[in-house]
Amino acid sequence: MNYFDAMDYPRMIAEYGRPENFLATFSRLSRDELRSIQERRFKSTLEFAWKVPFYQRHWGAAGIERGDIRGLDDIVKLPAYSKGDLMKSVEAHPPIGDFHGLDTYAPEQRPPLIFQTTSGTTGRPQPLLFGPKSREIQNLLLARFYALQGINSGDVVHSVYGHGMVNGGHYVRETILHWIGAQMLTGGTGVETRSANQVNLMKDLGATVIIGFGDYIKHLSQLAREMGLEPGKDIPIRIIAGHLGAESHETMSAAWGGAKVYDWYGVGDTGAIAGEGPDVAGMYVQEDAQYLEILDIATGQPVADGQSGDMVCTCLYKDDVFPIIRFNTHDVSAFHTNESPLGLKLRRLVGFLGRSDNMVKLRGINIYPTGIGAILTENHPELLSEYICKVERADGRDAMTVHVETRGDRHGDVAAYETLLRARLGVEIGVQLEAPGALASLTQIESRQKPIRLIDNRKAEA
Amino acid sequence: MNYFDAMDYPRMIAEYGRPENFLATFSRLSRDELRSIQERRFKSTLEFAWKVPFYQRHWGAAGIERGDIRGLDDIVKLPAYSKGDLMKSVEAHPPIGDFHGLDTYAPEQRPPLIFQTTSGTTGRPQPLLFGPKSREIQNLLLARFYALQGINSGDVVHSVYGHGMVNGGHYVRETILHWIGAQMLTGGTGVETRSANQVNLMKDLGATVIIGFGDYIKHLSQLAREMGLEPGKDIPIRIIAGHLGAESHETMSAAWGGAKVYDWYGVGDTGAIAGEGPDVAGMYVQEDAQYLEILDIATGQPVADGQSGDMVCTCLYKDDVFPIIRFNTHDVSAFHTNESPLGLKLRRLVGFLGRSDNMVKLRGINIYPTGIGAILTENHPELLSEYICKVERADGRDAMTVHVETRGDRHGDVAAYETLLRARLGVEIGVQLEAPGALASLTQIESRQKPIRLIDNRKAEA
Repeated sequence: MNYFDAMDYPRMIAEYGRPENFLATFSRLSRDELRSIQERRFKSTLEFAWKVPFYQRHWGAAGIERGDIRGLDDIVKLPAYSKGDLMKSVEAHPPIGDFHGLDTYAPEQRPPLIFQTTSGTTGRPQPLLFGPKSREIQNLLLARFYALQGINSGDVVHSVYGHGMVNGGHYVRETILHWIGAQMLTGGTGVETRSANQVNLMKDLGATVIIGFGDYIKHLSQLAREMGLEPGKDIPIRIIAGHLGAESHETMSAAWGGAKVYDWYGVGDTGAIAGEGPDVAGMYVQEDAQYLEILDIATGQPVADGQSGDMVCTCLYKDDVFPIIRFNTHDVSAFHTNESPLGLKLRRLVGFLGRSDNMVKLRGINIYPTGIGAILTENHPELLSEYICKVERADGRDAMTVHVETRGDRHGDVAAYETLLRARLGVEIGVQLEAPGALASLTQIESRQKPIRLIDNRKAEA
Repeated sequence: MNYFDAMDYPRMIAEYGRPENFLATFSRLSRDELRSIQERRFKSTLEFAWKVPFYQRHWGAAGIERGDIRGLDDIVKLPAYSKGDLMKSVEAHPPIGDFHGLDTYAPEQRPPLIFQTTSGTTGRPQPLLFGPKSREIQNLLLARFYALQGINSGDVVHSVYGHGMVNGGHYVRETILHWIGAQMLTGGTGVETRSANQVNLMKDLGATVIIGFGDYIKHLSQLAREMGLEPGKDIPIRIIAGHLGAESHETMSAAWGGAKVYDWYGVGDTGAIAGEGPDVAGMYVQEDAQYLEILDIATGQPVADGQSGDMVCTCLYKDDVFPIIRFNTHDVSAFHTNESPLGLKLRRLVGFLGRSDNMVKLRGINIYPTGIGAILTENHPELLSEYICKVERADGRDAMTVHVETRGDRHGDVAAYETLLRARLGVEIGVQLEAPGALASLTQIESRQKPIRLIDNRKAEA
């Protein structure tokens, strides 16, 4: 049972369609038709999950029995779980945990295991487990967004996702090579290919698309300018597709000479959940494959449409190795409540608002450090997108200071920046200016997929 | 035309068989049957190559016309070429050269391009170009050797090949995941995953196989011991498959607690050409896919069997993107002249002897710096496998000194080592002992796929 036998390509195409047909297919699909696809796939995934020790334990502890869940309407009865639960499973059942159903197969029927890890943003890397079927559908699903955003087989796509054990680089490489057919430059992080070499590579090969995390993509544009190149002209980038993080669409587009900029959202376990289309009016959830709920951060109950909360995802296509049912990403977003400009009936997310477990509460206000960079750089082009937030406890109250690199006078007046942050976030936040490059060792922009944006010194004192 | 459409899995299986059936299939195949497969595939590859500008120019300059080559017997009429010719093609036809036939396809028939680079052992990285068909057959071919060497779907395979733009890591990952079905740990180089983390990863995940370059695999065993672990026991490696380089089978096996050790040979362009089987009696050439000649280094004429010379490879399966006909690897080997202990009718190589373009001629004797490490460590276990050869010109003659790290007294007597080298290589070579780790910055063992083994100071003075 090799990869190609197990993935079953003809069946995959019949079930999920070709990525380039995403818009056409989903423009025709009614909500009722969509619901019936969701119910069918959910049933198959749920059936597989009942065989998996992790879910048996997790659901059993909540007193759930098989008959309790008859369809998606009942999904709210199932307890959500998060990365911490998976890490506990790994600890109790080393080395890969018991959240997979590999042992339920007869040996000759057992699909190959694809094993990578998260990039370890919040500590020890987490194992990511896929079978050939779930892996390739996940690749196909990301390709839908790339295709919707206009990436095609004529492009030269430069990827700045990391490789090694980390999933990201391998994931997007498979997606682009298997389903888009564009030429791929697997640059990786600044550790795998030095940043200056990445710039030269993009120039020499005529890269037209960059994919990856916004922070580093912005960093490369600054570096290209320092090297005497004009991004967008000397490096003919026309599309940037990734995770904007601290960047706004506008600053990122300007950094790369007017390139179109698209965001998409997903985590290592789930793959691409939602992505922007050419309307750039929110991120479409591909609901035939990903069933997304938004739950109140404190109570875990569904919020009203338009309200923000934790994104909790059920992957409707993962019924081969690691089924994912109600995985709490702890990433915060909200559903749009207005109509899609593209006429798609799919639900749309407002975008990634921050991480609920990295959220800082300052005098009752929720602050997401990952969102602060965009506010500052969007309004003050003299500020670079390199920044880090420090939180301290002094005189009995918490205070946050944003350290941000500037190409201007770093002893200049910060009042305008502080006023802007107070106006946008509703709470007083200090600003301290730093020289270009001064924060690199703190944010680890050159070596991490997602730079560090928060140093919380309160915990150290507790 | 996506990857899966273009690779045509059912046809691939029909033509090349499943990797695990390699021994059984080729045990039955007669030389006549093999020749007829070779002729058929060569014809198709040659036909495609005639459409490729690089070959039209290269063969045209040698006065070759289509009718001149009627089969493999005529292949000697075609001029060989080497990496330098490909780099010139890249320079004249940026960015990917004109040695591919992508422009001969109608747009909707054009297969996706898979683009990686060499690791840049000898200067600027070279583009490596594949189509889905040639890429996946190449993966399948490497899997034949892995299967022959005993690697199967129950193994946990730790890879120390690099990723990023470099081909190696992606190549072996595809091979293992697509065709062997083992669990893969894509450790990469010490730059992607720090060496100590690699050791811990192998321990935690229970790695049973390591694949990669011998120098670094040996380095990891030393590190594991420093970390208080016993290789082979705490990390249950049972097979090492890769490129031994400076290591002998015996020292590598001892370093990893008695693991079985297998060598295989190939370059980025060609993929796996030859590999050892369980008999460890030379490397079997998979002649249905790779037509290998050994040519005299000076004259370019075929040598008698048993004589050493440059390996010149024609890939019989590459008729989609970059056809390879008479590529001179400048790696030196020789054919075995005795019978295969496994009863296979395939030709066997004695192993990788060195690089002809990195060869040093000392008083008429050809010395390959990559081969010197194995001679020393095989006989003197107190020496570590970290070494570098320096060549200087003094008093009108060339002199080589091998600097080698020792765990013994580094001011000790080197006479025994020098005597051994003179006995084995037939020429006087000096030895200088160094402390463990002292040479890492010169060999670049932590960051390079293939460590530097030669510093030629004669050229600097010229």
